[in-house]
Amino acid sequence: MASYKLLLLPGDGIGVEVMAEVERVIDWFNRRGAVSFETESDLVGGAAYDAHGQSISDETMRRADEADAIIFGAVGGPKWDSVPYDVRPEAGLLRLRKDLKLFANLRPAVCYKALAQSSSLKTELVEGLDILILRELTGGVYFGEPKEITELGNGQKRAVDTQVYETYEIDRIARVAFELSRARQSRVTSAEKHNVMKSGVLWKEVVTQTHKDGFEDVTLDHMLADALGMQLVRRPKQFDVILTDNLFGDILSDVAAMLTGSLGMLPSASLGAPDGQTGRRKALYEPVHGSAPDIAGQGKANPLAMIASFGMALRYSFDRGAEADLVEHAVSAVLDEGYRTGDIMADGCRLVGTQEMGEAVVKAM
Amino acid sequence: MASYKLLLLPGDGIGVEVMAEVERVIDWFNRRGAVSFETESDLVGGAAYDAHGQSISDETMRRADEADAIIFGAVGGPKWDSVPYDVRPEAGLLRLRKDLKLFANLRPAVCYKALAQSSSLKTELVEGLDILILRELTGGVYFGEPKEITELGNGQKRAVDTQVYETYEIDRIARVAFELSRARQSRVTSAEKHNVMKSGVLWKEVVTQTHKDGFEDVTLDHMLADALGMQLVRRPKQFDVILTDNLFGDILSDVAAMLTGSLGMLPSASLGAPDGQTGRRKALYEPVHGSAPDIAGQGKANPLAMIASFGMALRYSFDRGAEADLVEHAVSAVLDEGYRTGDIMADGCRLVGTQEMGEAVVKAM
Ligand SMILES: CC(C)[C@H](C(=O)O)[C@@H](O)C(=O)O
Ligand SMILES: CC(C)[C@H](C(=O)O)[C@@H](O)C(=O)O
Repeated sequence: MASYKLLLLPGDGIGVEVMAEVERVIDWFNRRGAVSFETESDLVGGAAYDAHGQSISDETMRRADEADAIIFGAVGGPKWDSVPYDVRPEAGLLRLRKDLKLFANLRPAVCYKALAQSSSLKTELVEGLDILILRELTGGVYFGEPKEITELGNGQKRAVDTQVYETYEIDRIARVAFELSRARQSRVTSAEKHNVMKSGVLWKEVVTQTHKDGFEDVTLDHMLADALGMQLVRRPKQFDVILTDNLFGDILSDVAAMLTGSLGMLPSASLGAPDGQTGRRKALYEPVHGSAPDIAGQGKANPLAMIASFGMALRYSFDRGAEADLVEHAVSAVLDEGYRTGDIMADGCRLVGTQEMGEAVVKAM
Repeated sequence: MASYKLLLLPGDGIGVEVMAEVERVIDWFNRRGAVSFETESDLVGGAAYDAHGQSISDETMRRADEADAIIFGAVGGPKWDSVPYDVRPEAGLLRLRKDLKLFANLRPAVCYKALAQSSSLKTELVEGLDILILRELTGGVYFGEPKEITELGNGQKRAVDTQVYETYEIDRIARVAFELSRARQSRVTSAEKHNVMKSGVLWKEVVTQTHKDGFEDVTLDHMLADALGMQLVRRPKQFDVILTDNLFGDILSDVAAMLTGSLGMLPSASLGAPDGQTGRRKALYEPVHGSAPDIAGQGKANPLAMIASFGMALRYSFDRGAEADLVEHAVSAVLDEGYRTGDIMADGCRLVGTQEMGEAVVKAM
């Protein structure tokens, strides 16, 4: 029987509570026995900073490197708002992405039928929505150098961030987008600001080139990032796969997430390149939502995005499509049965806590 | 009688048609006689490139510098998609912004009552929406150096853009935001990515400092730019004034614009600092929409954003609040009377062309 090593990094705030529900799902698989998981838990973010002054330790990085997949909760909170920049909670997550070379961030924006009415958009515009955002995750302004603040005298400072993209970085994320689009509607919309940014010029050029290199069966469109933001709000169902850089992807995927009616529902996967020998990819799975310090520790958090993130691990790290479907259907089923955490509560539904929601998912499985 | 010099730069595509309707409004003021305008027209964008190989000429820049205000249409179109980067249509607009030091871009996102139903958001979420976005317009990644593509050999290239902000640039736009908020709800939300960008760290620090320097009557909040994008979609009415940098402002103002139900309705103002001697600001007024090449030349374009931009000129360049109100009310009135261009057409309304809409506004005045 296949057995895999998972590193669980719950992080801060509600990360801890929602991770407990993933463990419940993992237990279910372990008991059932077609595939099994060995788990190890460790600290990241503010929790790691409190324990040893770093947002992720070298030892944790070593474990992350050895794991078959990392299941990540969320990091940050007001408690760490004034810790030094280099050890702020987010730095732990950024180090994982960068050091493990997790360049391909998959952010599905899927609107569950049972939740279409809780979107702020008109129901007919989001019902059945199914967008996949491919965000480049290890380049751009997140990591480019120089990245610094210098004193100019007279109380003046100058801050600099650098957006850098090389051809190979754009090419490899474009390939992932084209490949994944084939299991969908084979339509990719690439977003940049080539009218203002040189990185946008190169982005558009490389994506166009890669498209010609064996992906001409896929329909490729280009859209300016600002126009795409607008179109997401206006008519989201026009999109299938959206391909964009690290910073635009950060904002546009959050906008897209909000269209679906709840952030508490959305998973994500961050993938590396397949290893030359084993063919395996390094991978990290995390919910799109944050650590929600305002409701942390109260058992109110919605664990479905976190559980769905584990579902993505089954699909993308372990090639367990059937098991992934099982998790996804269980998530849909509990919604159809009317189970709701506070963030997605609606008239006539049953308000449950984090744990009860996790139990309902396992039951539905 | 006060007389002002306007430079009209219609630009490309529908810019030309909608500018003609502003001229109709200007004529009305000139005939009526309490304030009068002398107008001069010139080329910018693709039209300028076609005429003399530059997206704006030095002579036009000289005129722009001398004018009391610039009324700008829109630039760009597929025709110029492969002209060299430095002379692409957008470069004309960017040069105007940069050389005239128009650092404060005001983008109101106002939902006209008559149009609330055409928003993709649920009507109750946008009815009465009135947000003012203050976008920094002469700094950040739009203008920072280096900004270049270099060949690395082996077909590889590296593209670099540089996001730079200095203390004084953040301070002066923050002051404009705080000041303008006082005529509204005295609430400012500043957006950056201080968790990832050094420019975000400085942005937050300077805005916090400027707030303490005489603006403590204004409520200041900070929000990450991605979270703000999300909140705009979720509950837009929570915002009063949004203060952000050039690139985030580009995207977030387009998202906000789309909430109101039509881009064809939204004006903007780009202001410089008051001159030390005359107290006058350089200023450019333009609709938020683009040149819409797909409908250009057909007399279908909505001229209301362009007309409302002239309304902003009356208010911000000429201190003519009563006249600005008159223009704004006329725009509301024609909507209430059921006049609609194609972009905002709805059941039971009267479909009109660009010119008929312009005439209706003048009649309502
Ligand atoms: C936590 C933060 C560093 C992160 C980002 O900006 O990438 C988050 O917003 C995300 O989208 O994953
Ligand atoms: C035309 C383009 C250069 C411009 C920008 O990116 O600033 C436009 O999108 C805008 O928002 O005014």
